[in-house]
Amino acid sequence: MERSDVRTKAMAARSAIRTLAGVEEEEKNAALEAVADALMDGREEILRENGKDLAAGEAAGISRALMDRLTLSEERLAEMAEGLRQLCRLPDPVGEVLELRELDNGLRIEKVRVPLGVIGMIYEARPNVTVDAAGLALKTGNAIVLRGSSSAFHSNRALTGVIRGALAETSLPPEAVQLVEDLDREAVRELMTANGLIDVIIPRGGAGLIQRVVQSSTVPVLETGVGNCHLYVDRAADPDMAREIVINAKTDRPAVCNAAETLLVHREWAESHLSGLCEDLKRYGVEIRGCATTRQRLPEIRLATMEDWDTEFLDLVLAVKVVDSLEEALTHIDKHGTHHSEAIITEDAAAARSFFTGVDAAAVYHNASTRFTDGGQFGFGAEIGISTQKLHARGPMGLKEMTSYQYRIHGNGQVRV
Amino acid sequence: MERSDVRTKAMAARSAIRTLAGVEEEEKNAALEAVADALMDGREEILRENGKDLAAGEAAGISRALMDRLTLSEERLAEMAEGLRQLCRLPDPVGEVLELRELDNGLRIEKVRVPLGVIGMIYEARPNVTVDAAGLALKTGNAIVLRGSSSAFHSNRALTGVIRGALAETSLPPEAVQLVEDLDREAVRELMTANGLIDVIIPRGGAGLIQRVVQSSTVPVLETGVGNCHLYVDRAADPDMAREIVINAKTDRPAVCNAAETLLVHREWAESHLSGLCEDLKRYGVEIRGCATTRQRLPEIRLATMEDWDTEFLDLVLAVKVVDSLEEALTHIDKHGTHHSEAIITEDAAAARSFFTGVDAAAVYHNASTRFTDGGQFGFGAEIGISTQKLHARGPMGLKEMTSYQYRIHGNGQVRV
Repeated sequence: MERSDVRTKAMAARSAIRTLAGVEEEEKNAALEAVADALMDGREEILRENGKDLAAGEAAGISRALMDRLTLSEERLAEMAEGLRQLCRLPDPVGEVLELRELDNGLRIEKVRVPLGVIGMIYEARPNVTVDAAGLALKTGNAIVLRGSSSAFHSNRALTGVIRGALAETSLPPEAVQLVEDLDREAVRELMTANGLIDVIIPRGGAGLIQRVVQSSTVPVLETGVGNCHLYVDRAADPDMAREIVINAKTDRPAVCNAAETLLVHREWAESHLSGLCEDLKRYGVEIRGCATTRQRLPEIRLATMEDWDTEFLDLVLAVKVVDSLEEALTHIDKHGTHHSEAIITEDAAAARSFFTGVDAAAVYHNASTRFTDGGQFGFGAEIGISTQKLHARGPMGLKEMTSYQYRIHGNGQVRV
Repeated sequence: MERSDVRTKAMAARSAIRTLAGVEEEEKNAALEAVADALMDGREEILRENGKDLAAGEAAGISRALMDRLTLSEERLAEMAEGLRQLCRLPDPVGEVLELRELDNGLRIEKVRVPLGVIGMIYEARPNVTVDAAGLALKTGNAIVLRGSSSAFHSNRALTGVIRGALAETSLPPEAVQLVEDLDREAVRELMTANGLIDVIIPRGGAGLIQRVVQSSTVPVLETGVGNCHLYVDRAADPDMAREIVINAKTDRPAVCNAAETLLVHREWAESHLSGLCEDLKRYGVEIRGCATTRQRLPEIRLATMEDWDTEFLDLVLAVKVVDSLEEALTHIDKHGTHHSEAIITEDAAAARSFFTGVDAAAVYHNASTRFTDGGQFGFGAEIGISTQKLHARGPMGLKEMTSYQYRIHGNGQVRV
């Protein structure tokens, strides 16, 4: 029987993990440096291949935003190479002894950090994910099977070609980085159900892609990304601080997952400050969709629909709701939140504590903008995505989050009696 | 629209988690003590209900082993109560600050251990799992939705009734413990796909049940249990130590997941010692199924089939294969292992190191029996199961493994610039 592209590549990746598990940090760093150099040396070919994707995108009439994300340039390649060099400077988490216990019978149990194994990465558009993900995988001793979108096919193929070519000159096996070239949807399904070959699937992209993966994958998934983030301005919020945080969380970069989408305002605070805040937001170009109470103050705004409370606008749109209590805010977040990032603005420490324990999200903020939920901001140095699930990793996932652990038990003949 | 039993109960469990997240360790311990007392006070009713299951099992002609696992007694109830009291003496992991970092901008980021939320537990036969799992969930601030097998229906209903009755007199919400009473298979499917209501599914039972859950669940799964464990007797193994470990790992308790199923023996060691070892095993009643080389020495044994290498016998049967090298042993384990527990017996430290990095399993042993892979033996005090996957938790899962974490970020007005 002929093997499919996905199975062939998953098996090739798997064949690399025993070698990868044994390589030293210096070897991994040398390999990353080699890949960084190769990206710069191969820039002409990469940009030529990228040009094919851009031409096809142009012909297919894809959006300006998508075209921008698809575009590579010498500068962007240099950034990708620099990202790899930064990875070299981060400590290698693999091999770290997380716990050590000695039992009465003399058994010594070490809990040691090990690679996850083979990562399956399913992602959209941006070709830089190809390099970032491969770099993070290699630094943590993982093999990776990449499945990018068809719109970036030539770019991804050129990039993985350069990566594998560079690895061939190092002590790391080039098989560790695989690109699925079968563009049929069936190939994605096959990757998500390759239990035994793939250890974890990481989806990166829009809400639709992530939901499809969560619904169909039998391989464990690290769910990333969707952020319907709330700001709750408490009764005891400082008005200037609230204003600054709301404007920053909504307008600094509205298209990213840690931007705020809904503003909840305590009724008492709203009485004195909501109209002013909304005026300020409008000056920043924000469209407000309000609850009935908000509209009583600002009749010109649109009434928020039920759907608006569940929407990650990723745009200069903000849903605004007046609530009677912290409790009502918590209930709203429980119902509409996506477990990403939520913030309370208040001078009342007890209210902040209740918010921390009452909100089921990866990152909960007191008196700060939700925009800080990011591996770079958190000091992780690198990030593969932001997890919104509760198993394994939550919030920004850096190098440590790309590892598992193993118990290593050292004995001298112990048997169980 | 009428809500199904599963959705109603999952929503009820979910309604409890905000309360649970805020309770103190003392309150949780008091509740566990109350449940332990209630189990003893309610023993007559519990045993009467258990009698119904036993009578039905008898009538259906279920196996002796299954009948034994189904049977409750005053003694077994006392053990379950004592298990709950032991939980009280274990430290509460919730609230532990795992990391603390202060950024240059003054943000203080705490990484705090929090409950997982709502656990869905799908399990077979033994009614004691009902109490054990509820106890572990409550101690870690989780709510739990239980779906036991139909054969233990009356027992499980009586036990959860007693647990909920006891909780009603404490500060913990009785809604935290739910039993799905709908015995249709569809109810299991519904539980496994209740994303947003259930945070994690834990299956406990045979390989068939676990595979069904892994294949069908869209909620993240903690895969537990199947152990096709190998012992590799290296060229440099001490003969007496090898003999003791092999006999212990195979015969101490063959029906459990950490028992050995396949013995791999280096050719050189086999030449002097394999015949003697097999004679010893036969005296312990072990049936040996050997590779062709093994049969050259012991012509009377059965030839192992391809299937045997993949079988968790859970019985006094051992597959035996002679290998030419450590490398061949690693390749065999890679192909047939279930990532549970694997052991090498050798006096050669370098071989042991290669085995540790080369084997992809939760627990890897050097010169000790695989039988130690167990929460109790590892000193965890309690165990919900043994994970054979690599995300979240690996190996024995105790209280810590029933938690997630949350980033709590304390600011004084920080915005991202």
